Amino acid sequence: MRISELARRGGVPVGTVKHYLREGLLPTGERTSATQAQYGEEHVARIGLIRALLGVGGLSTRAARSVLAAVDDPTASAHDMIGAAYSAIQPAAKPSDLTAAHAHLRRWGWQVHDDSPPVAVLAQALEGLDAAGFETSDQLLDRYARAAHEIGEGDVNMVPIGSPAEAVRFAVIGTLLLEPVLLSLRRLAQEDVSTRLLSGPDR
Amino acid sequence: MRISELARRGGVPVGTVKHYLREGLLPTGERTSATQAQYGEEHVARIGLIRALLGVGGLSTRAARSVLAAVDDPTASAHDMIGAAYSAIQPAAKPSDLTAAHAHLRRWGWQVHDDSPPVAVLAQALEGLDAAGFETSDQLLDRYARAAHEIGEGDVNMVPIGSPAEAVRFAVIGTLLLEPVLLSLRRLAQEDVSTRLLSGPDR
Repeated sequence: MRISELARRGGVPVGTVKHYLREGLLPTGERTSATQAQYGEEHVARIGLIRALLGVGGLSTRAARSVLAAVDDPTASAHDMIGAAYSAIQPAAKPSDLTAAHAHLRRWGWQVHDDSPPVAVLAQALEGLDAAGFETSDQLLDRYARAAHEIGEGDVNMVPIGSPAEAVRFAVIGTLLLEPVLLSLRRLAQEDVSTRLLSGPDR
Repeated sequence: MRISELARRGGVPVGTVKHYLREGLLPTGERTSATQAQYGEEHVARIGLIRALLGVGGLSTRAARSVLAAVDDPTASAHDMIGAAYSAIQPAAKPSDLTAAHAHLRRWGWQVHDDSPPVAVLAQALEGLDAAGFETSDQLLDRYARAAHEIGEGDVNMVPIGSPAEAVRFAVIGTLLLEPVLLSLRRLAQEDVSTRLLSGPDR
């Protein structure tokens, strides 16, 4: 199909498709003349992926390019590339002290790298809660860790193990795009519980 | 204490304290002369809260002001004000269709408003996953809903019920600032599970 049809199928203006091409997010089509190229179904799917990363995922063009590079790399082993891709999509965190975060992780016996990027995010979040005067007891964090581990375990078991490229694509997209799902479900669950408590036992 | 001491205790430059005062995030101190005011411990705590909202929470000045207004309102009932504050801190979502999100919520029997802001976030996230070619089966979403409900139930039960103002402060701060905790724990749990699977049964 031509670029105009690709844009229509992808649900974006032609100018946006050209922008994706210029930014290296979308592979160029098969050139059929000096001014025209042909695109296939894989380009339509790729536009859906790019839109999701930039939209719901909230990534910068640069971060999206890193994620797509990991997804595209056919030589990478799934575990290594998932790690690299996670680093690319991890918000930068600069906590002043990782001690508390490491202590919790040891308490739970989780096997993670000391300098795994989410450790810094966790540490910074704990600092923020502390600065806001919000006490994060072991009991509270244990509850979060238990639920997070249930989710993480299900996530990993869902990853298709046949093809490394597909595994990376699945893990990265799933990790990133399921985050707003998890956060919105938590808020809705809070609303549900709060409504039930207010309406009393004989609702 | 004077503004210079307040800045030191709050861990920010004096210029930042003045910025917070100008923006209405920090209440003015007790004026002791034409050019000086006295501040108390409550101002130090407030700076910690503002820093957490703007930093870890990632809020705009405007959204932070809404949250602080909810926290400060002594007349509000806890449930209503928590709702208002949640709306202020909810990222704007404009999904084209809420049908799928509502169908899942009905399936789980959750009692939430049809136009509760997180419903739109959920719907938009589901659209993004669909656009990225990521299948969100009922089984997957049920797993997330179960974990989110465990967390949400614990969150609500933790809210102090004595003072409405304290309840709102607790619920809003907790909801917002525990989000990066939950997301980083999910990623660390994935790493833990992935490491265990790779290292085999006799690690």
